[in-house]
Amino acid sequence: MGWTLTEKVLADHLVDGTLEPGEEIGIEIDHTLAHDLTGPLVWLQFEALELDEVRTEISVQHCDHQTYQPDFRVSDDHRFLRSATGTYGAYFSRPGTGICHQIHKENFVVPGKTILGADSHTPTAGGLGQFGIGSGGLDITVAMGGEPYYFEMPEIVNVRLEGELGEWATAKDVILELLRRTSVKYGVGKVFEYTGPGVESLSAHERTVIANMGTELGATSSMFPTDERTRELFGRLGREEDFVEIRPDEDAEYDGTIEVDLSGIEPLIAAPSMPDNVVPVREVAGVSVDQVLFGSCTNGAYEDLLPAAKMLEDRTVDPRTEVTVAPGSKRAAEQLTREGWTVELMAAGVNISEATCGACIGAGHVPASDSVSVRTFNRNFEGRSGMEDDSVYLCSPETATAAAIAGEIVDPRDLAEELGDLEPPGRAMPDEYVDVSESDIITPGEAEEDELIKGPNVGTVPLKDPLPADIEGPALLKMGDNITTDHIIPATKEVSMHRSNVPKLSEFTLSRVDETFAERAAAADGGFLVAGENYGQGSSREHAALCPMYLGVEGVLARSLARIHKTNLFNFGIVPLSITGEAYGKIEQGDDIEIVDDVAEAVSSGQEAFTVRVDGGWETTATLEASSRERQLLVDGGKLPHTKQKQT
Amino acid sequence: MGWTLTEKVLADHLVDGTLEPGEEIGIEIDHTLAHDLTGPLVWLQFEALELDEVRTEISVQHCDHQTYQPDFRVSDDHRFLRSATGTYGAYFSRPGTGICHQIHKENFVVPGKTILGADSHTPTAGGLGQFGIGSGGLDITVAMGGEPYYFEMPEIVNVRLEGELGEWATAKDVILELLRRTSVKYGVGKVFEYTGPGVESLSAHERTVIANMGTELGATSSMFPTDERTRELFGRLGREEDFVEIRPDEDAEYDGTIEVDLSGIEPLIAAPSMPDNVVPVREVAGVSVDQVLFGSCTNGAYEDLLPAAKMLEDRTVDPRTEVTVAPGSKRAAEQLTREGWTVELMAAGVNISEATCGACIGAGHVPASDSVSVRTFNRNFEGRSGMEDDSVYLCSPETATAAAIAGEIVDPRDLAEELGDLEPPGRAMPDEYVDVSESDIITPGEAEEDELIKGPNVGTVPLKDPLPADIEGPALLKMGDNITTDHIIPATKEVSMHRSNVPKLSEFTLSRVDETFAERAAAADGGFLVAGENYGQGSSREHAALCPMYLGVEGVLARSLARIHKTNLFNFGIVPLSITGEAYGKIEQGDDIEIVDDVAEAVSSGQEAFTVRVDGGWETTATLEASSRERQLLVDGGKLPHTKQKQT
Repeated sequence: MGWTLTEKVLADHLVDGTLEPGEEIGIEIDHTLAHDLTGPLVWLQFEALELDEVRTEISVQHCDHQTYQPDFRVSDDHRFLRSATGTYGAYFSRPGTGICHQIHKENFVVPGKTILGADSHTPTAGGLGQFGIGSGGLDITVAMGGEPYYFEMPEIVNVRLEGELGEWATAKDVILELLRRTSVKYGVGKVFEYTGPGVESLSAHERTVIANMGTELGATSSMFPTDERTRELFGRLGREEDFVEIRPDEDAEYDGTIEVDLSGIEPLIAAPSMPDNVVPVREVAGVSVDQVLFGSCTNGAYEDLLPAAKMLEDRTVDPRTEVTVAPGSKRAAEQLTREGWTVELMAAGVNISEATCGACIGAGHVPASDSVSVRTFNRNFEGRSGMEDDSVYLCSPETATAAAIAGEIVDPRDLAEELGDLEPPGRAMPDEYVDVSESDIITPGEAEEDELIKGPNVGTVPLKDPLPADIEGPALLKMGDNITTDHIIPATKEVSMHRSNVPKLSEFTLSRVDETFAERAAAADGGFLVAGENYGQGSSREHAALCPMYLGVEGVLARSLARIHKTNLFNFGIVPLSITGEAYGKIEQGDDIEIVDDVAEAVSSGQEAFTVRVDGGWETTATLEASSRERQLLVDGGKLPHTKQKQT
Repeated sequence: MGWTLTEKVLADHLVDGTLEPGEEIGIEIDHTLAHDLTGPLVWLQFEALELDEVRTEISVQHCDHQTYQPDFRVSDDHRFLRSATGTYGAYFSRPGTGICHQIHKENFVVPGKTILGADSHTPTAGGLGQFGIGSGGLDITVAMGGEPYYFEMPEIVNVRLEGELGEWATAKDVILELLRRTSVKYGVGKVFEYTGPGVESLSAHERTVIANMGTELGATSSMFPTDERTRELFGRLGREEDFVEIRPDEDAEYDGTIEVDLSGIEPLIAAPSMPDNVVPVREVAGVSVDQVLFGSCTNGAYEDLLPAAKMLEDRTVDPRTEVTVAPGSKRAAEQLTREGWTVELMAAGVNISEATCGACIGAGHVPASDSVSVRTFNRNFEGRSGMEDDSVYLCSPETATAAAIAGEIVDPRDLAEELGDLEPPGRAMPDEYVDVSESDIITPGEAEEDELIKGPNVGTVPLKDPLPADIEGPALLKMGDNITTDHIIPATKEVSMHRSNVPKLSEFTLSRVDETFAERAAAADGGFLVAGENYGQGSSREHAALCPMYLGVEGVLARSLARIHKTNLFNFGIVPLSITGEAYGKIEQGDDIEIVDDVAEAVSSGQEAFTVRVDGGWETTATLEASSRERQLLVDGGKLPHTKQKQT
């Protein structure tokens, strides 16, 4: 039996486990990336490891979400990130250089290698045969520290492409078609591997558009084989030496197959407010459009903006419609500018902004109330645009341009028929890409800084000590059922502005349950959280474990724990114990809690039942369910101390 | 005795008063402008006039401060402004088209005409012989309603220019030299009129740079004569038909003279944190620079950005220094792009942003903490950059480019000597400016909207009724001495985000003194404010009178009133009365206040002493000091009702 491409790459990087779907595997990480929202914590955690430099082949820090720098905290973050890359031997992509995945494609991607990114669209690289996964910041730090990345081996689904795209149909429509057929949950636990004769009809760039939005299917990753078209892209980028040809075996076996006839794809659009709410453009034609935005990590490349410029040549955008282009990279912008296309956009009435992806998360160009925004982006979750009850549509650059011209949603085929002289813009790439400016990406060798520059908003992340033999302390807070990570660390602007300052952020820990908690916990210097059912449900944010750890919390006693938060508790060295309903009922806030066993020894040895003594009197049994890897993390004090111990 | 140019233009527009310094004069306004921060209130007030269309020759609404649209309220404002221009026959310059004064220069300025702008840098037009004054929003509304603008006739100071600028010296250095010699208060009550043989050595654009920053001298306005160089600019802009030659009489008499030898000007820089803190660049050479910003209404033109591009050709910016260009207009950006200069900036590592002036007021590109920012802007007041304890330097584009290359402040002459191959970039203008995109500025004839589009954040401004015969109501609030306009309407972000919604904004009225005030005032439907000495000191904001008016306040009884706020009270129809210290001491909050006289009749007839009866018992005399024009405003219910009454 042959191997899939995904299995080949994973086998090549496997350090733990076997490639059976559902089994936990550990893989070596070649490249990492982070952006300006996730990067600060990544580097603060790396600082805590006290290593001299990153252990990956290439780690890149990007600044793309907040290039408008609305606040000194953002500018301080950017400066801190630059100093961190200089200090620890990573690449720094400056604010305005471009969007992380576009910059990775242009400069760093290598087929057959792995990349772990602190951004969910890291699988973009799969369009060029690099296996990419998005993860939380802690895993990026750990990978930069040289440790493997652990995840469940996904199922591999074969997406078999036949035929060729017709006029006005695009790669974006291919991934919208997959979303139309399935759902935003369909891809969970799966890698989509694209095969079949249709693959070679797609340019290497078009494949990255599809891989990028595989994330909206919920997929772990997406992979394309590499071929002459991939080599062509590497060649024109001046990086032919990085090209590697990789493909699945002819007789590879997949866990499922989806067939797509490219010639049957028509212009599609995701209507508000979910990326899988996909309909043919014609079904929503006539909707008046207030704003059109071009760009994002999905459609910000030269190849995505060129069709818009061609369609707008000698035309103007509708006066009712605000149209903005935020290029995916400065290099793409420079290419378009050198070839004379940027002036066509300007003359058509388009606002040309910085190379940024901020608008996608509401950091700029927020739509007006009760208005319609058409975007070439990848997500239209309600409120993501920065406007609570927004109406955001997602489509190809061609369909977005048609809307900009008409002032309303229209299938570009119908607009072409109506106008008479609107030709399909084609799917061109430059003969040769312009060089990246040497000042846009600062290499480890060129960096000026060799120490961290921290503004007053940039804190320090502490390392937890190894698990002690004795754990004893007060029940700091007794909570009810269904406490969410939003209760533990709110995601409001007021709180999240302190994302680079763990001491400050920790002051908000559980403030929505008890405003005095943070102060009491810090004063107690140790202790337990007591909770009912489903503790830690909701968002996966790591701060919900990091901040309690910072405040000295050593264990959680809960009737049950939400899965992802429990993982985060292991990662930050907090012991998650299940207790009975009866015990939960009896424990009162302020009670003294003591784990009677030698905790370090018991966790290490695989012991599941622990004796908990309350107020020096009655006892109950608490249960620890954990894999041997998770037990090791607890013993070492969490993932960071574990990594440090192994690497130094 | 001959006339100054200023006198000629003012005489040509005079409708009230005589041209004696210090006398109040009323002049006809030909043009108005407002931007996106001041425009919403301008148009909401215009709506209240219930006129069909603006009565000016040209009124233009710009969107330049908040093009990044960080919030739906900003986008709603932009949409409202567009709909208002369509409804009332004004021009709309879309977000991204450019900065108001640059757009005015390129498209609308006419020598010899007057312009009133809701922005302090409106005198920029004086570089091309148009008399410009900045004012509050209400005056713009009134001017758009066809009424004259009243102000004190300024002194006219002759700035006599000799010689020619040397290499590396610029127009920016000329105005910095004037600031160095005088102060930011020197120009209060003055118009600076530039004469002498040095004038013709300056391009028409260079004159606008100087006129623009005359505002930093505190000047009412600045004026240059027009000549062949002005005609040349109009011709290359394709607007030769708008050119008019105007100049002072040879024997004009001035109220003072300053002599400047242009050949003696060297590169200068305003050090933190005041525009008159000017020193030779060499005095601060070596200061490490974190950020360089190009643009603003001062130096955002093609002619300002070209030197930067030329100096950066085949070079890169220092890796420690973040460099951003925000062009003054999209047209300037397009011109640079068509000529191949934008790619030089990009290749040098410059971040090219939108045509915006946001960074000047901290709306984007806020400096990092404890960092140095070098800007081609016009103001470096502490905190204006968005960072409280900032270090902002102001200089020419040439000096800013030198800092971008070196990563530290350096006199461009010294950098040229050090590098050996850095030539002075010269002072070129294009042979022919590119056309403005017809989609960038929407003319009254092309507008799509003919009714106002208001988001939920856009309110309505009420008109006050004419002054009644009887005024009676409770003393709503008794305050102490020195209440500021910040007490009346705070300028915090939380409050000012409601700037387009008077009903909502009014809820914050005097909340810093008494949180229950707004609710109590609205419920009372009429009443008085009672205050000690110097009521209404501080910022000139009109909302401090508008919001109390909205809440129904009919009079202020104060021991004394600050001058500007008293004017604003007249403008919004609130009767400002002075009371004795004894009466102030006796009145208690909640007392019933009655003005015994026939108020309308008494105000109208010029009566100064009014009898005030308190709680139906004791009486005191209050004094009204007001000109006959101010009395007419009170009688009509304020400036808006006054304008409406005269125009309909």
